[in-house]
Amino acid sequence: MPSIDEFGLIARLFAPLARGHAGAQGLQDDCATIDGPGGMDWAISTDALVAGVHFLPDDPPDLIARKLVRVNLSDLASSGARPRFLLLSCCFPRAMTADWLEGFAAGLAADCRGFGLALIGGDTVATPGPLTLAATALGEVPSGQALLRGHARPGDDVWVSGTIGDAAFGLEVALGQAPDQSDLLERYRLPRPRLELGVALRGLAHACMDVSDGLVADLGQIAAASHLHAEIRAAEVPLSAAVRARLGGGGLERAVTGGDDYELLFTAPPERREALAALGRRLDLRLTRIGRMMPAGDLRPPVRLLDGQGTALALRRPGYRHF
Amino acid sequence: MPSIDEFGLIARLFAPLARGHAGAQGLQDDCATIDGPGGMDWAISTDALVAGVHFLPDDPPDLIARKLVRVNLSDLASSGARPRFLLLSCCFPRAMTADWLEGFAAGLAADCRGFGLALIGGDTVATPGPLTLAATALGEVPSGQALLRGHARPGDDVWVSGTIGDAAFGLEVALGQAPDQSDLLERYRLPRPRLELGVALRGLAHACMDVSDGLVADLGQIAAASHLHAEIRAAEVPLSAAVRARLGGGGLERAVTGGDDYELLFTAPPERREALAALGRRLDLRLTRIGRMMPAGDLRPPVRLLDGQGTALALRRPGYRHF
Repeated sequence: MPSIDEFGLIARLFAPLARGHAGAQGLQDDCATIDGPGGMDWAISTDALVAGVHFLPDDPPDLIARKLVRVNLSDLASSGARPRFLLLSCCFPRAMTADWLEGFAAGLAADCRGFGLALIGGDTVATPGPLTLAATALGEVPSGQALLRGHARPGDDVWVSGTIGDAAFGLEVALGQAPDQSDLLERYRLPRPRLELGVALRGLAHACMDVSDGLVADLGQIAAASHLHAEIRAAEVPLSAAVRARLGGGGLERAVTGGDDYELLFTAPPERREALAALGRRLDLRLTRIGRMMPAGDLRPPVRLLDGQGTALALRRPGYRHF
Repeated sequence: MPSIDEFGLIARLFAPLARGHAGAQGLQDDCATIDGPGGMDWAISTDALVAGVHFLPDDPPDLIARKLVRVNLSDLASSGARPRFLLLSCCFPRAMTADWLEGFAAGLAADCRGFGLALIGGDTVATPGPLTLAATALGEVPSGQALLRGHARPGDDVWVSGTIGDAAFGLEVALGQAPDQSDLLERYRLPRPRLELGVALRGLAHACMDVSDGLVADLGQIAAASHLHAEIRAAEVPLSAAVRARLGGGGLERAVTGGDDYELLFTAPPERREALAALGRRLDLRLTRIGRMMPAGDLRPPVRLLDGQGTALALRRPGYRHF
């Protein structure tokens, strides 16, 4: 019996149900698009978080709410959409206290205000299991301009925003496996969706997605959707000082295969390097060229991480496995 | 410390976050609306199902998928919207088998085909808890014509489609607490969203919602949203022969307070009686006038169930309580 995995069986079973709508992108993108009013599309995405899997049960409730909002907004960012609406599906254990709920609502309120979102619907049910949350986010994007994973072209540079790996090490802090370090912990608990960057990348980037399952795994998604191969130069992967300090003992692998970065990973032709450098300065956001896309050929795996000598580094796994 | 309940604390905490968008209806309707293309609105709704709460863990997987689709479509029906798109959020226990998943996908495929739905997105994650599913459904409705709970007027008749209580007794069959009876069991496992009725009620009904938490509780939602009071004549509540046979020992109370009917409950002025009778004949669907709306006055509770002498029957609880 085949094992259940997000990118295999489930994709094969569900993808045919998307055939009726081109904007579903065969379920291979973070957002689908549907027609909106007056030359706009609605970009729409849904993401679920489970206590003990995507956050720790004793994380502060306001931060859980904000993480839920932000992982969904990160999907909108990767499509170049501006956030507008949110729907929530909350499965609360019966033991949840009013204090906890008030904290959760306060976090939700803060991020709705901060990101200009209206909560327009939801469902609240009781669960005998762990706290389980799902959100659907809707954003607006000019018709046909949503950024997609599958539009990378051979010769494109591969770019990534911010720094990679902080959240993976932040999880270790949250679990008490590493010394307390608030900047890493915050990157794990409170992702910063790169919404302004996403909007600005419309017309500049060819392909775009957000890094949620790990840099290497997610670049593999762009490569697969674009029928290309990708190379990353390990030395170019942008790392924070905090992560750089932990580079020994498999640290680089942890950084490039750990999840929860919520940075944007995108490709663009070399003639856009100047424009992208200027964009990074304007947004005060580090944008780093880390590799390139090339014809798929016979190279395996679809993404190779190269050391200074151009040798592919072996990785135990490319990213977070859901199953 | 106050207890957590869907209609109290959570509503109070979340409703302010909806203020930025009139189409959110203050989170008091089953669907919100957002602008669509060319004179249309998108009606959008989200509903979650948890194993052991909303279905039984050993229910057939195709029926679980179809129930998930249908409870969401029932929300669209109650708004008078035609279904178009679906997004899924699936939290699967790791022990799920490929056979189970294939059954689930087959049920999903059957209902996507049957209702003209395209699956346009979703998220699949692992959970250490029970199978937990959420869906977001989008349907189209002419701008500003979505049916709402809060539009009932004094003097309106109260109508309901189909028969009430079958699903509540079907749950007893599913639990092995009652003799096997396939028609009741099917009503519990496989709701029939009243989509054609919903579309036809645009322009005929004043207020509309679907019956999911129990007839009395849900009419209470219409009454509260409309700032009115409602009366139901117990003898008029439409019951199937199977439910009628079980009327002894609190059977009527079970029928009018049990959940999962997924019939439409609506109000309309008396001058529409002829038109509604004709509509019922055209759709080959029983439409029954069961009561009326009146000014709120000082009457408590907001919905009264009257016996043949006009005396209010006492109910232990008006409907399903989530918490």
